[in-house]
Amino acid sequence: MSRFFSSRNKDVTPYTPGEQPKDMQYIKLNTNENPFPPSPEAARRAAEETLRNNIYSDPRCTDLVAEAAEVFGLDKDQLLFTNGSDEILDFAVRAFGSESYPIIFPDISYGFYSVFASIHGLPSVVIPLTESFEIDLEDYKGLRGLTMIANPNAPTGIAIGRDRLEAFIAEDPDRLVLVDEAYVDFGGESCVPLVKKYDNLIVTQTFSKSRSMAGARLGMGFACRELIAEMDAIKYSTNPYNVNRMTMAAGIGALKDREYFEGCCREICRVRDWFTEELKAMGFEVLPSCANFVFAKSSRIGGNELYLGLKERGILVRHFETERLKDWNRISIGTEEQMRTLVETLREMEA
Amino acid sequence: MSRFFSSRNKDVTPYTPGEQPKDMQYIKLNTNENPFPPSPEAARRAAEETLRNNIYSDPRCTDLVAEAAEVFGLDKDQLLFTNGSDEILDFAVRAFGSESYPIIFPDISYGFYSVFASIHGLPSVVIPLTESFEIDLEDYKGLRGLTMIANPNAPTGIAIGRDRLEAFIAEDPDRLVLVDEAYVDFGGESCVPLVKKYDNLIVTQTFSKSRSMAGARLGMGFACRELIAEMDAIKYSTNPYNVNRMTMAAGIGALKDREYFEGCCREICRVRDWFTEELKAMGFEVLPSCANFVFAKSSRIGGNELYLGLKERGILVRHFETERLKDWNRISIGTEEQMRTLVETLREMEA
Repeated sequence: MSRFFSSRNKDVTPYTPGEQPKDMQYIKLNTNENPFPPSPEAARRAAEETLRNNIYSDPRCTDLVAEAAEVFGLDKDQLLFTNGSDEILDFAVRAFGSESYPIIFPDISYGFYSVFASIHGLPSVVIPLTESFEIDLEDYKGLRGLTMIANPNAPTGIAIGRDRLEAFIAEDPDRLVLVDEAYVDFGGESCVPLVKKYDNLIVTQTFSKSRSMAGARLGMGFACRELIAEMDAIKYSTNPYNVNRMTMAAGIGALKDREYFEGCCREICRVRDWFTEELKAMGFEVLPSCANFVFAKSSRIGGNELYLGLKERGILVRHFETERLKDWNRISIGTEEQMRTLVETLREMEA
Repeated sequence: MSRFFSSRNKDVTPYTPGEQPKDMQYIKLNTNENPFPPSPEAARRAAEETLRNNIYSDPRCTDLVAEAAEVFGLDKDQLLFTNGSDEILDFAVRAFGSESYPIIFPDISYGFYSVFASIHGLPSVVIPLTESFEIDLEDYKGLRGLTMIANPNAPTGIAIGRDRLEAFIAEDPDRLVLVDEAYVDFGGESCVPLVKKYDNLIVTQTFSKSRSMAGARLGMGFACRELIAEMDAIKYSTNPYNVNRMTMAAGIGALKDREYFEGCCREICRVRDWFTEELKAMGFEVLPSCANFVFAKSSRIGGNELYLGLKERGILVRHFETERLKDWNRISIGTEEQMRTLVETLREMEA
């Protein structure tokens, strides 16, 4: 460690992204990417911007905000775009977390929530999932703080219905609920319409999964005007030009091409449901997923063994070596062909 | 203000980017953009990536780091890429600033230094420029903290020679010096080679100005391995996939196309020097600029009056309404044609 590193950061454990080995070509089912390329409309618009990159991108994201406002039926000041949805989560934690207003999240969920709390020196309250890996909102009763609910949750894929979430939001106006809808387009019920009704709700989405833009980095926040303005103040104190021109143009294209988006989501859900049945037929336990991945446990071989065996055979899945998750693996849904290869490989391994 | 906004942020004044009005087409000389498009090689590579955006970008920026290591003659672990250079400045402030290690910077410089200190609740020490708008490094003697020196400085354009900066870096190994070289390619002397020699030096550069990529967002940090690793820990606790695929590809193209880069810089310097003489001939006072802008003061009309008069006539320049700067305007160097139009307009205005 250098003599300059601030002691404020010494206890921070950075997030570990899914591995991206370069030693060979893998079937990559470890980071929940979309197996389909972005909409041709998104790619075309992004390519057109490449020669205009000498001019700064619009820090207000005016055109993208206008497009999204129409698609989601919201006012323009109820939207904020960021460099991936990690950034909007970061802005929310910084805007609303404090010594007396902790960050509250499930013990098993997106790994970044605890990292954000820790890097900003904020207290966290961690609530265990139930025995069946579910978020039981009853367990959050009486707790006040910025409450992060991934819906569907990762790595389980399990979703909570909008009615239950609405009751939770309505229950305590002084609890600020952030619903992280990274995976909502694969079968969840979005809370976006609720931001018109509740001023203690933030919804975040990403273009990384359902809109095939993980590599372009585009996140989206939805909330009442005041909360958006306060996250915007953090953005303007950090990185006003956070979204680049090409990504902004691609985002507009992706929103416009609704047919392509819906087609990709439909196909991924179809393959997911077929793959889930195949896994079950082999004796796997599979949690009920509303996401573009499944969380599965072999009845025959351990989680790490399965992960390593698949890696050796050219297929990457995501393994978490913690006590409660170590028997499981999170498997992203690829193309039908990729998943057929995986099924055959699992059969060969007698998993 | 919402009832959720953390009191930690209440005193923060966000940065104000240069205006980007949409009411008409302006000759935009207010945000130091490059008037030339990015290198065709940068644009071509970025366009090729648009259809691969479904896959996450490489958080290690492996290929871009390798290219830059070669271009700058450094080791790969002496480099870090960010979403614009604002982000690397932010990472440095967060990694190295603390209650007992303030952020030190000149009173007249890039406006974001004070914003970063304030948003992270860190103390700042602000040192006035000399009467002639220069940074006198003697004034920093005995001060310890993260010391931000923009070289050339903005909005003055005045540069400090590398020898003087090296002596300053060597003087106190416990002072961490950050040299912000956003404008160095237009006539400054880069301190990048010094990172091999000093472990208390960070140099930052951007692709926004000399490489015509303001809209693509790409910043670069140079330092010894340890300091880079510590800023990288902040990155991995904030936004690991901070640089998107298209920008990364464009960055490689921009670094490869040295001839285009050098040609653009040469032309901008040529036009700057000609424009400076024109201004002086009209009676303007002009600071000696090593950047892609000049800081100038009319002997006849006030700074705000000049700014408003030009805006009315379709030309945007940057005005700062503070006591010491209010008679001046910062004028970015555009194409020769744009600058000729500006000179004619100034003559008509009898400025």
